[in-house]
Amino acid sequence: MSKRPSSPGSGEDRLIARHFRPLARHPGAFALGDDAAALTPPPGCDLVLTTDGVIAGVHVFPDDPADAIARRALRVNLSDLAAKGAKPAGFLLAIALPANIGDDWLAAFARGLGADADRYDCPLLGGDTDRTPGPLSVSITAFGTLPTGTMVRRSGARPGDVLVVSGTIGDAALGLKLRQNPGTGRRLAEDARSHLLARYLLPEPRTGLAETLRVHASAALDVSDGLAGDLAKLCRASGVSAQVDVEKVPLSDAARALLSTEPALLERALTGGDDYEILAAIPAGKIESFRAGAAAAGMTVTAIGRVEAGDGAPQFTGPDKRPLAFDRPSFSHF
Amino acid sequence: MSKRPSSPGSGEDRLIARHFRPLARHPGAFALGDDAAALTPPPGCDLVLTTDGVIAGVHVFPDDPADAIARRALRVNLSDLAAKGAKPAGFLLAIALPANIGDDWLAAFARGLGADADRYDCPLLGGDTDRTPGPLSVSITAFGTLPTGTMVRRSGARPGDVLVVSGTIGDAALGLKLRQNPGTGRRLAEDARSHLLARYLLPEPRTGLAETLRVHASAALDVSDGLAGDLAKLCRASGVSAQVDVEKVPLSDAARALLSTEPALLERALTGGDDYEILAAIPAGKIESFRAGAAAAGMTVTAIGRVEAGDGAPQFTGPDKRPLAFDRPSFSHF
Repeated sequence: MSKRPSSPGSGEDRLIARHFRPLARHPGAFALGDDAAALTPPPGCDLVLTTDGVIAGVHVFPDDPADAIARRALRVNLSDLAAKGAKPAGFLLAIALPANIGDDWLAAFARGLGADADRYDCPLLGGDTDRTPGPLSVSITAFGTLPTGTMVRRSGARPGDVLVVSGTIGDAALGLKLRQNPGTGRRLAEDARSHLLARYLLPEPRTGLAETLRVHASAALDVSDGLAGDLAKLCRASGVSAQVDVEKVPLSDAARALLSTEPALLERALTGGDDYEILAAIPAGKIESFRAGAAAAGMTVTAIGRVEAGDGAPQFTGPDKRPLAFDRPSFSHF
Repeated sequence: MSKRPSSPGSGEDRLIARHFRPLARHPGAFALGDDAAALTPPPGCDLVLTTDGVIAGVHVFPDDPADAIARRALRVNLSDLAAKGAKPAGFLLAIALPANIGDDWLAAFARGLGADADRYDCPLLGGDTDRTPGPLSVSITAFGTLPTGTMVRRSGARPGDVLVVSGTIGDAALGLKLRQNPGTGRRLAEDARSHLLARYLLPEPRTGLAETLRVHASAALDVSDGLAGDLAKLCRASGVSAQVDVEKVPLSDAARALLSTEPALLERALTGGDDYEILAAIPAGKIESFRAGAAAAGMTVTAIGRVEAGDGAPQFTGPDKRPLAFDRPSFSHF
């Protein structure tokens, strides 16, 4: 539309060559010198496809570090792949850059992206770079592989299944709260504060859990919109209900420290989102084998409740054995 | 970040259910009810992956019809797949919606998207929906399949190859000119004006050419940044030069009519972009077989020149046999 003239070897070509080509070492990326990428799936495998984006001012703060924005954008997609039982195979990057983004920012962004592409063995395969009059937008499409027909769905949970979560719940939502309201947690020790802020800025996709989930889970998803809301989604998709024992929900020491002084934040921890932990339903007979698989992968998993028959909303039961009522069971941008 | 509370079954879920779920009939889309999609590639095939987006105010006019924006966003990706010799297999849609986008707009958008998904046999597999404080942004990632290792590259052109293009060149760039400058082409007949405007608004991906390209072409790309600039890219990637006979470049009757009154617009036609035609290099010995394949697919192709040895910029030779010099050989958003 409002195109600007350029000579062959345009600014876009130079930007890609300088910042992104060094990341594109996969043979199917063709060094970002073609119109498309090629991926040869292993025989007998499905491709698992997911796309998730971050927009400055919506999903990240505009002044978050460039490398963290890049890593977050990739990691939220890797979290989806892990929850579905898929092994990362590569990703495409679509980035829209406002005019105030300069070369240093892009260099840091590419450095963060490359570090995580290596760390999670998920190479950059291609992409699309544009200018935008709006905020920075980073949209990643990630590909994973798994044996045909074995993707872990949301919809397979059955009454009697054990509900498990990876890692700890609520850190990111509490970290966001600390960032938004500097008055929160004034008596919190500095290392606890840093832990929560870091958990918000940079999720840890549970890639190592993918294989054992694929073998054992009857249903799974990653917790991005809050444990309560995402459990409700899993239950609706599976046509079941669930019971969660709040005392069993794994909390970090930092979260416990904050909740001990501000207990009303428990709801925020259980509903606030951005955990990027995995919530799964595991048949009771497979739970020990699942635990062993998780332990072998160096992953912490915790049983928090059970899938039950029925179509009511999942119940979270507190220490007094009475169900909690949440004011805001889940978060949405809409 | 600035999340708004919602009950389970959020506004985003309802928006997706109302507008996009009816399009997601592919079994691997899981009715848009999961975190990811699954695609089973045909045995012995590669996946070809491409991503291209449209941002309102950059690639489309904000007041372009919603259905045309949807179709354009899908078609520019289908054009890439066609140029690479791949058969469409499906796509993911990442859409960022400003607050002023309402339900009627989304209904029209989904209608256009669904019509083209059916027309080109390229089903919606999944996606991501967000609100944005910026302009409308539609980013599509499309997947195609072809026998392993047979993707048509930019880099395979060899001296002696015949350069061919599909369809007609320059219509879209001239249509954009008419739209931007109402003074242009004042004496142009109404049907010619409509033709050029329509060719800008809605490209025609040459999906039908994919198979014969895959079998015959030594190199190909789709012409999105102008014939001159994209030929230069193909030549650079292949380490060759080229000679184009400008009189052979296929022009529509409408383009001829406009150029007859405003001959200076020839450069615009050859460099302006948005053609979404295919430019390919075909070994001389395969040209008849390629033509037959194109004709069988109902596609028009025209030989416009030859690939030559050397690494200089491709030359466009005019009726006087002297090379044209372009002020602006290609367009770029950067």
